[in-house]
Amino acid sequence: MNPLLLDALKGKNFSNRPPVWLMRQAGRYMPEYRKIREKYDFLEMCKTPEIATEITLQPIKAFGPDAAIVFSDILVIPDALDVGLRFEDGAGPVIEKALKTDRDIENLRTESLLGKLDYVFQTIRLLKKELKIPLIGFAGGPFTVASYMIEGRTGKTLRNTKKWMIQNPDSFHKLLNLLTSHTIEYVEKQIDSGADVIQIFDSWANALSDNHFREFSLPYMKRISDAVRKKNVPSILFCKGSCVFAPLLAKAGPSGIGLDWNAGIASVRSKLPNITLQGNLDPDILYASPPVLQREVKSILDSMQNDPAYIFNLGHGIAPDVSPDAVKILIDTVKQYSASS
Amino acid sequence: MNPLLLDALKGKNFSNRPPVWLMRQAGRYMPEYRKIREKYDFLEMCKTPEIATEITLQPIKAFGPDAAIVFSDILVIPDALDVGLRFEDGAGPVIEKALKTDRDIENLRTESLLGKLDYVFQTIRLLKKELKIPLIGFAGGPFTVASYMIEGRTGKTLRNTKKWMIQNPDSFHKLLNLLTSHTIEYVEKQIDSGADVIQIFDSWANALSDNHFREFSLPYMKRISDAVRKKNVPSILFCKGSCVFAPLLAKAGPSGIGLDWNAGIASVRSKLPNITLQGNLDPDILYASPPVLQREVKSILDSMQNDPAYIFNLGHGIAPDVSPDAVKILIDTVKQYSASS
Repeated sequence: MNPLLLDALKGKNFSNRPPVWLMRQAGRYMPEYRKIREKYDFLEMCKTPEIATEITLQPIKAFGPDAAIVFSDILVIPDALDVGLRFEDGAGPVIEKALKTDRDIENLRTESLLGKLDYVFQTIRLLKKELKIPLIGFAGGPFTVASYMIEGRTGKTLRNTKKWMIQNPDSFHKLLNLLTSHTIEYVEKQIDSGADVIQIFDSWANALSDNHFREFSLPYMKRISDAVRKKNVPSILFCKGSCVFAPLLAKAGPSGIGLDWNAGIASVRSKLPNITLQGNLDPDILYASPPVLQREVKSILDSMQNDPAYIFNLGHGIAPDVSPDAVKILIDTVKQYSASS
Repeated sequence: MNPLLLDALKGKNFSNRPPVWLMRQAGRYMPEYRKIREKYDFLEMCKTPEIATEITLQPIKAFGPDAAIVFSDILVIPDALDVGLRFEDGAGPVIEKALKTDRDIENLRTESLLGKLDYVFQTIRLLKKELKIPLIGFAGGPFTVASYMIEGRTGKTLRNTKKWMIQNPDSFHKLLNLLTSHTIEYVEKQIDSGADVIQIFDSWANALSDNHFREFSLPYMKRISDAVRKKNVPSILFCKGSCVFAPLLAKAGPSGIGLDWNAGIASVRSKLPNITLQGNLDPDILYASPPVLQREVKSILDSMQNDPAYIFNLGHGIAPDVSPDAVKILIDTVKQYSASS
């Protein structure tokens, strides 16, 4: 198996380039994906192991990154909790039965969701038969998943979530605890099914202050990464806001931290010498001309060269209208890079 | 005149509490404001000096903060550039003639806009007759104003702006240069009309990477704050993302930096000992119960106590559905605070 990602997560990638994979590397920007999407609903695609497998492999075949990430969504847990999840073109995820009251939280199922999530584990097993690179399993961070369940629809702010959290922290913690328990069981089973790495996406943690991050995001992410560590599998914690929260994330003890693009990654490294860092190209650089794109990728590579604990990635997911050619150029640039020694 | 704000901006507030004012302290959350808003369009309110004066004074009368900020909008410059600005309830600002091509930028007026912005200067002159506290004038940061002019409508991302910036940096710089020239003339005239402090809101700079912030936001903010300094008036640079960008903002040489709420302000202070800091309560804390609100305000006050270069504020503007009672509690808590020595 391609050793780069797992080596980098151990801080022991002594080859002359970092591993590369991209958040949302399987998705709407690929014509192969859109062809399948024409025939199936998004959730149907996630829930059909053969299709999810095929989609996971599309970018692997097209671009040859150093890791695959199972095609799924951070909202499969709310879906298994029967909150009426659907994906609308344009509007993104919509949750019909958005949480409104404490009682809505109390009514959420506490019994295992593994049976309802079996399609993910099947997909992972199918993928493991095909792949010669590590497979990343993932889940949403409890704060972020909770925010979707409360907002119901993607908006500009997380106002309802923040209000709930601030006005009724006890019931909000109940929700986070419930989601954390389900998530731990879920990622453990992903590992048992063959996932080599687990990444947790607490994407909207950037809505939080330092105090609230410490109270409502970090402890739950830590519980998940602790559970992953007990399974002897590396974990990566990602959130937007990570350029601010990186020192706190590092203390939670994951194998790696996924950085957004606000800070230069080398300056984060200078403050955090002892943890694997992943990132952090601005995803919008994929709209650049090829020479500019190559220059920006190389600029990050140069700033992190010979770093044995570095994984090249974007600072957030690939947008749907990006050209597949740009993704190819990005990945080729990393793979053809050779650190000067 | 109440000396606290100007003293804090010199790093010489040796009283036992910091000054307090709040971004968007005049606005929709106040019933007095909504009563006027029923009769007038938002831009009409900005453009009628007597009304803008009355609205500016509403929170001063109701809550007694230590500074007033002229009631206006960062989009008055695009409005003076005739881009078809209107404010829709719910959708926020809409720019009818959003910029689409380089030619749209070339066609923008380069001659002085001061005549078209005279209502702001009139408002400032009227306010100066009434106020016994400093009056803050303001403008948008060129990057943020450009983003509104390109997006046309508030969305979840600044994708069109970022694409333009990345694909056509030369024409984007032209736009930023044009806006910077207009903004400098505009803030200089605000100072000549009586503004005691100038704050620049580059609110959406958090969409930028470190490199892009250095190229597309910071130099333009610096030019404006340099112009303000030449007029012997203090300047405050605010942006979302400032918890990451604070060291860069400090190098631009403003009198103060306005922080968003992602980082603890005392930890920013430990890295930047020599500049005035303003902020940084999470604006959503205004939804908390009175005891929680008081506790959170005091927690910031305690962390910054006896800091002679600190201004209490939120990390962003007050939301429309906040209770005026909460704003009163916040301001009273700061004003009744007495640092233990």
